[in-house]
Amino acid sequence: MPKEKESKLSFNLKTPKGTKDWSGSDALLRDRIFTTIADVFKRHGGTALDTPVFELREILAGKYGEDSKLIYDLQDQGGEICSLRYDLTVPFARWLAMNPDVRSMKRYHIAKVYRRDQPAVSKGRMREFYQCDFDIAGTFDPMVPDAEILRIVTEVFEELGWNGRYNIKINHRKILDGVFQVCGVPEDKIRPISSAVDKLDKMPWADVRKEMVEEKGLDAAVADKIETYVVQKGGRDLLDILLKDEGLTANASAKAGLDDMGLLMDYLEAFGVLDKISFDMSLARGLDYYTGVIYEVVTEGSAPAVSSSAPEAQAVQKSGKKSKSKGGNLEDDDRSNDPTLGVGSVAAGGRYDNLVGMFLPKAQIPCVGVSFGVDRIFSITKARIEREKSAEALRSSEVDAYVMAFGGKGFTGMLKERMSVCQSLWNAGVKAEFSYKVKPKLPQQFKAAEQAGVPFAVILGEDELAAGKVRVKEMGLEDGHPEKEGVLVDLTALPAEVKARVAKKRGESVSDVTQQLGDLKVDA
Amino acid sequence: MPKEKESKLSFNLKTPKGTKDWSGSDALLRDRIFTTIADVFKRHGGTALDTPVFELREILAGKYGEDSKLIYDLQDQGGEICSLRYDLTVPFARWLAMNPDVRSMKRYHIAKVYRRDQPAVSKGRMREFYQCDFDIAGTFDPMVPDAEILRIVTEVFEELGWNGRYNIKINHRKILDGVFQVCGVPEDKIRPISSAVDKLDKMPWADVRKEMVEEKGLDAAVADKIETYVVQKGGRDLLDILLKDEGLTANASAKAGLDDMGLLMDYLEAFGVLDKISFDMSLARGLDYYTGVIYEVVTEGSAPAVSSSAPEAQAVQKSGKKSKSKGGNLEDDDRSNDPTLGVGSVAAGGRYDNLVGMFLPKAQIPCVGVSFGVDRIFSITKARIEREKSAEALRSSEVDAYVMAFGGKGFTGMLKERMSVCQSLWNAGVKAEFSYKVKPKLPQQFKAAEQAGVPFAVILGEDELAAGKVRVKEMGLEDGHPEKEGVLVDLTALPAEVKARVAKKRGESVSDVTQQLGDLKVDA
Repeated sequence: MPKEKESKLSFNLKTPKGTKDWSGSDALLRDRIFTTIADVFKRHGGTALDTPVFELREILAGKYGEDSKLIYDLQDQGGEICSLRYDLTVPFARWLAMNPDVRSMKRYHIAKVYRRDQPAVSKGRMREFYQCDFDIAGTFDPMVPDAEILRIVTEVFEELGWNGRYNIKINHRKILDGVFQVCGVPEDKIRPISSAVDKLDKMPWADVRKEMVEEKGLDAAVADKIETYVVQKGGRDLLDILLKDEGLTANASAKAGLDDMGLLMDYLEAFGVLDKISFDMSLARGLDYYTGVIYEVVTEGSAPAVSSSAPEAQAVQKSGKKSKSKGGNLEDDDRSNDPTLGVGSVAAGGRYDNLVGMFLPKAQIPCVGVSFGVDRIFSITKARIEREKSAEALRSSEVDAYVMAFGGKGFTGMLKERMSVCQSLWNAGVKAEFSYKVKPKLPQQFKAAEQAGVPFAVILGEDELAAGKVRVKEMGLEDGHPEKEGVLVDLTALPAEVKARVAKKRGESVSDVTQQLGDLKVDA
Repeated sequence: MPKEKESKLSFNLKTPKGTKDWSGSDALLRDRIFTTIADVFKRHGGTALDTPVFELREILAGKYGEDSKLIYDLQDQGGEICSLRYDLTVPFARWLAMNPDVRSMKRYHIAKVYRRDQPAVSKGRMREFYQCDFDIAGTFDPMVPDAEILRIVTEVFEELGWNGRYNIKINHRKILDGVFQVCGVPEDKIRPISSAVDKLDKMPWADVRKEMVEEKGLDAAVADKIETYVVQKGGRDLLDILLKDEGLTANASAKAGLDDMGLLMDYLEAFGVLDKISFDMSLARGLDYYTGVIYEVVTEGSAPAVSSSAPEAQAVQKSGKKSKSKGGNLEDDDRSNDPTLGVGSVAAGGRYDNLVGMFLPKAQIPCVGVSFGVDRIFSITKARIEREKSAEALRSSEVDAYVMAFGGKGFTGMLKERMSVCQSLWNAGVKAEFSYKVKPKLPQQFKAAEQAGVPFAVILGEDELAAGKVRVKEMGLEDGHPEKEGVLVDLTALPAEVKARVAKKRGESVSDVTQQLGDLKVDA
C-alpha cells in the first residue's frame, strides 16, 4: 500500500495488540486440526458445550490468583459488570453448578480465551488464543475416566499424524505430596516446594535446589532427599520401586497416589496405550487446583531452550537423552501464556475434584480433563507439513475443479455454459469454480486455477460441447504424459468422472490440504 | 437445587443478560447446521476468515449510524481502546483494506457478534448471537458473483432439508431509486421513502402511505404513484412489464438496474435456480450501504404477525396468498436484532460496492454477500425435527455402541475386557462408551445406553468371551423380533460388524441426530 494512501487514514489499520486474523491456508489447516480433535472427542461420547465469550465478573473472581490482573473487563455501560473469559474451565464449572440435574458429563469446548498479558506475537504468545478442552465430570470408580482421558490424548496426536513423536508425562499430586511429607517438607512449604519442582523442565536441579534452600528456606538435607525422588522416571518399573519404598508407602497420601497409579497403568494397558506414557516424578504442574493424576504432553520441537547453566546435563537428566533441537517455526517460547499448559508442552491436564464446589459448596462434582494447546499444535503441524511437503501443498481453498472455456474468432466466452457445467458439478457435491469474466482468456483461467492449486481443469470448447463432450485435464502433468492434453468426457458423465479422478488423486497424492493431516498419518 | 444452597452463594449463578449456553442436543444440531452451511461455502471456493472478537474502537466508529450506541466497549485498562465486533462485515472490510495484495476473495465467516440491545431471550433476540456470512470481493463482470451468491443461498436451504419451503425475494437498489425519481420523490427524501417501503412486510400499504405523506411530507399523488410499482411482484414477466415502461426506462438508474436484473435472471437460469427467486418491488432493505441487487429469504413460519389493521388484506397483498400461521417455537419476533436481516427473514444480503473504501479511500473493492440468520434457522430446523420426528431423536452425543458386561455370582465386572473391546472399536473409528464403574449392574448399563440414545449394545458375557464371542444387540427392538436378544459375533469381527450395522441403521432410520439434516432432505 503506497505511503500516501496510508497517511490519509485517520486511524490505525490493524488488529488490537496480541490478536491476529486467521486467513487462507492457515485458517484451513487450523480448521482441519479442530475437526480432527473434535472427531476424537465425539468418538468418546463427548458433547459440545458453548458458553458466552463474557461472564459476570463475579463468576471469574477469585479463580485465577494473581493472574486475575490479566482478565479483560468490559466497560460499565449500565447493567451487569462482565469480563471476557480467561479459560474454558471456570465457565464449565459455572455451567455444571447451574445445571444441578447433570451429575455426570463428557464435554468438549473449542473456543477463544482472553488474557491481557504482555503479548509476544512472534513467539505465539497472544492475548486472544484458542483452547481446546475435554473434561469428564462425575463420581465414578477410581482412575477409569482418568485413563480414558489419556487414551484420548494418544488418539488426538495419532490422528494429527504425529505418529508417536510425543511423550506423555504423568505424575500424581498425592504421590508428590507424600514424597514432600516423607522428606520432611513443612506443611506450609509443600505448595511452594512443588512449584519449584515444576521448574525442573526448564532449570537444572542445582538451580531448583538453590531456589528451595535459599529462596524458600528449605533445609538442605530435605532438598537433597527430594532430589532422590524427583529425578526418577520410568513406567511400571518405577512404580514397583516406589511400592517397595516402605518409608513412602507408610505415608497415606503417597500410598493412595501409588495405588491410583497402579490402577491407571492397568487401565492404560487395557486401552493399549501404556507404552506411550512415562511416569515422571518431576512433573508437578503449576495450578493449585489439581488433586490427583496430572499429565503433560511434550513433543520433538516443543521443548524450550534451557537458558541457565549446564543445559546439556539438564537435558540428559530430564529426558534421558539429549534434547532435540527446536523444530519448525517455533522459537524459544520459554513461557506459555496458558497456565494449564506447562513450558513447551502441547497438551496438559489432570484431575480437579474441588473446582465445581467453588460455585456449589454442597454439591461437589469431581472432574478430570485435558486442554490441548492448539496454537502450538498448529505451528508444529504446519512446520512439519512445510518440511515434509512442498510449500504449494498449503492451499487456501479446497476447490477440486476449475471450469473454463476457450474459442477462436467470435468466441462468446460461454459464460452460461460454464455456469451450467458448474451447476452439474455442485449438484454432485464437487467443489468447483469458474471465472467471473464474460469472456476470459484461456491463459487467465489456467493461471487462476494454478494459483488456487486446483487439481483439475474442466475445459469447454465450442465444437466439443456441440458434440456433448468436455475435456477434463489434470493440472501440472509433465510434458509427454499421455493425458497431458486432458481426456474428452461425455457431459452427462462429467460429475462422476471428476469425482472419481479427485478421489483417485487424493489416494495417490499428498498435495491437497484437505488430506494433509491424514497423509501425514500414512507416510510419517 | 434446594433453596438453602442457593442462598449461600455470594454471586448470581447465571450467564450475562442476553447470552446463553449451548449444550446437549441443541449444541449438536447447531454444529450440524454450521457444518452444512460451511460445506456449501467450501463447494463454491470459499476460504475461512477468522478475525478477533474485538477491534480497535476507531475501526467500528462511524459504520453503524445510530446503532453505534449498541456497541460493547472494553474497559480502558491501559493501552488500546477496543470494542466487541458488532457484525462480521466491517471486520472483513478492515481485513481487505489491511491486505492490499488481495484484490479478490470469496470468504466465509461463522462467528458470534455482540449488541447491547434490549434482549428478548424468549423471542430469540440476544446480545451475543451467531452470524454466518459469505461474501465475494473483487471487480468482476456484472451480476456473475451476485448470481453465484443466490445459487449458494438455494444450496444452503436445500442441504438443510428445507426442500423448497422458502422464498428468495430480490430487488435492485437502482431500480428502486429510479422508481422514486420517476414518481417524483425529491432527492433528499429517497432514503427515508425507501425505508418506509421496506416496512411493507409488516405493515399494510395504507400505513406505509400514511408514514410517507404525514410523517415524511411526501406529496400524496407521488405516494399513490409509488404504490403502483412497489406492490408488483413476479419473475421475468415483471421484468418484461417494467422494460416496456418507457417512463421508467428513460431513467438512467432504473435502466441500469433493469439491465442488471435481466442479466441476473439469465445467470440464475443457467444455475438452475431461477424458479426459486421472486422479483419483489417492495423489498428495500434497511441498511444504507447497499448499492445494487438486494435479497431476503423468508420461509414458512418465519414471517411475523402483522400487528396493524387489515392483516388479511395485507397478507394477500404481500404474498399473493394468505400468510401461513407461525410454526414451531418461533414467537412473534417482530424485530430482528440483526439489521442485515429483515423482519422475519432467515437470510439476507446484497451488493455493497463502497464499504471497503471507508478504510481505503483510493482502492475501492466492490463486494456482494449474504448473511444467514443461524439462530433463527436453528429454531425453525429444530421445530421441524420435533414436529416430524420423535422427541428422542434429538440426542446430545453421537455414540454408536455401548460396551457392557454381565455375569453371575462372583462377577468381576470385566472392566479391562470392556476397555479392550472399546479400544478395538475406537481404533476402527466407532464411537463407543462404557460404564466407569468396576462392577456395574446390567440394568444400569442398559439404562445409560437408552438415556443416551445409543443404538447398539455390545454385551460381554464370561462364557461367550472365553469362546472369543461377544453379543451385539440393537437397542429398542420389539418383542418377537428375531434379533431381540442380539447376535453372537466373533470378537475379531466386532468392529466391522458394528460399523456395518450402524451404517445399515442410518440408512433405514431417522433416529440419529447426525443424520437428521440429511433425513429431512430425503423425506421432506
